[in-house]
Amino acid sequence: MTSVRTPDPNPGWLSDLALQETRSRVPILYVEAVPARVDATGHIEHVGVLLRGSAQTNQIVRTLVSGRVFHGETIRDALQRNIEKDLGPAAFPRLPVSPVPFTLAEYFPLPGLTPLHDPRQHAVALVYVVPVTGECNPRQDALELTWLTPEEAQAPSLLADLEGGRGQLLKQALAWSGALI
Amino acid sequence: MTSVRTPDPNPGWLSDLALQETRSRVPILYVEAVPARVDATGHIEHVGVLLRGSAQTNQIVRTLVSGRVFHGETIRDALQRNIEKDLGPAAFPRLPVSPVPFTLAEYFPLPGLTPLHDPRQHAVALVYVVPVTGECNPRQDALELTWLTPEEAQAPSLLADLEGGRGQLLKQALAWSGALI
Amino acid sequence: MTSVRTPDPNPGWLSDLALQETRSRVPILYVEAVPARVDATGHIEHVGVLLRGSAQTNQIVRTLVSGRVFHGETIRDALQRNIEKDLGPAAFPRLPVSPVPFTLAEYFPLPGLTPLHDPRQHAVALVYVVPVTGECNPRQDALELTWLTPEEAQAPSLLADLEGGRGQLLKQALAWSGALI
Amino acid sequence: MTSVRTPDPNPGWLSDLALQETRSRVPILYVEAVPARVDATGHIEHVGVLLRGSAQTNQIVRTLVSGRVFHGETIRDALQRNIEKDLGPAAFPRLPVSPVPFTLAEYFPLPGLTPLHDPRQHAVALVYVVPVTGECNPRQDALELTWLTPEEAQAPSLLADLEGGRGQLLKQALAWSGALI
Repeated sequence: MTSVRTPDPNPGWLSDLALQETRSRVPILYVEAVPARVDATGHIEHVGVLLRGSAQTNQIVRTLVSGRVFHGETIRDALQRNIEKDLGPAAFPRLPVSPVPFTLAEYFPLPGLTPLHDPRQHAVALVYVVPVTGECNPRQDALELTWLTPEEAQAPSLLADLEGGRGQLLKQALAWSGALI
Repeated sequence: MTSVRTPDPNPGWLSDLALQETRSRVPILYVEAVPARVDATGHIEHVGVLLRGSAQTNQIVRTLVSGRVFHGETIRDALQRNIEKDLGPAAFPRLPVSPVPFTLAEYFPLPGLTPLHDPRQHAVALVYVVPVTGECNPRQDALELTWLTPEEAQAPSLLADLEGGRGQLLKQALAWSGALI
Repeated sequence: MTSVRTPDPNPGWLSDLALQETRSRVPILYVEAVPARVDATGHIEHVGVLLRGSAQTNQIVRTLVSGRVFHGETIRDALQRNIEKDLGPAAFPRLPVSPVPFTLAEYFPLPGLTPLHDPRQHAVALVYVVPVTGECNPRQDALELTWLTPEEAQAPSLLADLEGGRGQLLKQALAWSGALI
Repeated sequence: MTSVRTPDPNPGWLSDLALQETRSRVPILYVEAVPARVDATGHIEHVGVLLRGSAQTNQIVRTLVSGRVFHGETIRDALQRNIEKDLGPAAFPRLPVSPVPFTLAEYFPLPGLTPLHDPRQHAVALVYVVPVTGECNPRQDALELTWLTPEEAQAPSLLADLEGGRGQLLKQALAWSGALI
């Protein structure tokens, strides 16, 4: 199944003004992904964490693959598009057979209410673990992809570095895949 | 477009115009629920299907508990609010311990492209099975709640009656809970 | 993580007598798999169904990839071993990242009590959908692998042909992956 | 080996000798449960941890609700029976609608190879979070049930106290339910 788009030359894209207005009205739907290197039996050997310039703070932060689901776009297509946006066209992701995410991430604009926080908006993300088999070349504002063993990924200092409280999502990804120590 | 909703004081509420504009910009996030009566070991004995006046066609249709997630509202709160909206305040739902839905439902405005269809919008629904233990009194535009055995719920004629292709969701709910025959 | 075996030249293997005795004492743990061909976004294009000589009835029946978990063997290793046993060494399965199955199958020796039935034993199977990317060459007693579209796989006559009530598992696999019509 | 179990009339019961022999032949199937107190929206407020005399070491250890699935017994019935065995008849557990566990626990007899360990056997447990609404009165060899907030349950010292590496299961339960900090 591919995107179900009306013939619009700029599908999903919104002007800054329209996006800002929309963000004040409804929760915005995102997909997020924890890239993983897995062995022949599906066991996670490494998870990937991005180093990225934060649009919000102009600082360098660690984060996950993340992006909006556009109007008219399927979840699967949004996941594939955002992985390619963040990891490049040669990452060869293996998208999951089931569209059900391992967790939901709810970001609210006010900090401190929940562990997850996004000053721009109320966002709800469907979060997946996605094995990638090719070469990852972070693009756009992603500077670098770091591969970490499950053990390294659970270091409190690493988890605390993840933008918006996403250290929690990384722990949940490892718990779900049986790699949490 | 006229809405059958009464304007309530909830901050997530939008004017018809704002909602219509927003629907043309981003996918709208919903929660849906299949109400269920379960026995002491969690086995489904009956599932509930609503008879409702469709805002879209002005016809009487069968449907599930369904409603938008408002801006600033958690998924759990949206699920609870919409169950109360459709089943009344004495339904005593047992909301799931995990926020992960059993399936995602993607509705597109163009019919025929996917089994699910909503002429008003591109909507993404998180769908849950929710056991209810109290008395259900459908409110607002929901006329009646019918309890069906898993066997009755799988009758092709019943499934075909469900609005927007939701017969598929009912089958998935039964499959997930081990009650699909 | 690999098998955690004590140095036993015949790990997991049991004599007919020992197996028969064990089957009268405890439920026997199995893994089962629905092989699948998926597209770039993870969507199922075809599912594989085996044609096999039934050990129980000496008839030709349709079935899924299936086999015991041996003593000392991990679930992941058992899944890999049984897929190789039934599909050959060049199937290149992509084992799931999470060890959690999409459903549990409970087989009881008395027919008619539940949809699933195994005259030899009380068995509990962990059931997975496993994408395969290589060439499948059924081995041992499996005669042939048939690839079916999700639509073909839901034909009542096909589902009824599956050994021990496994048509139910195939429907659950399609429901879980969003391919049930 | 001496067992602390009293011989009950249940047909799944095995003599010490038969059980010991069976344990050397096949993985033994268990169910385990993390009891939970949840609020009206399903959010975990407390999880329950048992204090129990270990049959293996004659020491007092912390553990979860746990027990074998008997021959001829369904998973749901085994879960209900073992919750009643460990928490008493007035716990009023709400068994899950789906039989799929949130994780699988694989115990091997050799320590150190995996985080989970059971010197008696190779065991595979299906692990559930089960809300309980009644009064819990630990029975048999369970001395006491302690209710912990999700925060308290994540204290490394508490997690390390859990028998056989089950601290990992408790973390996975909290991650799955969105209560992991």
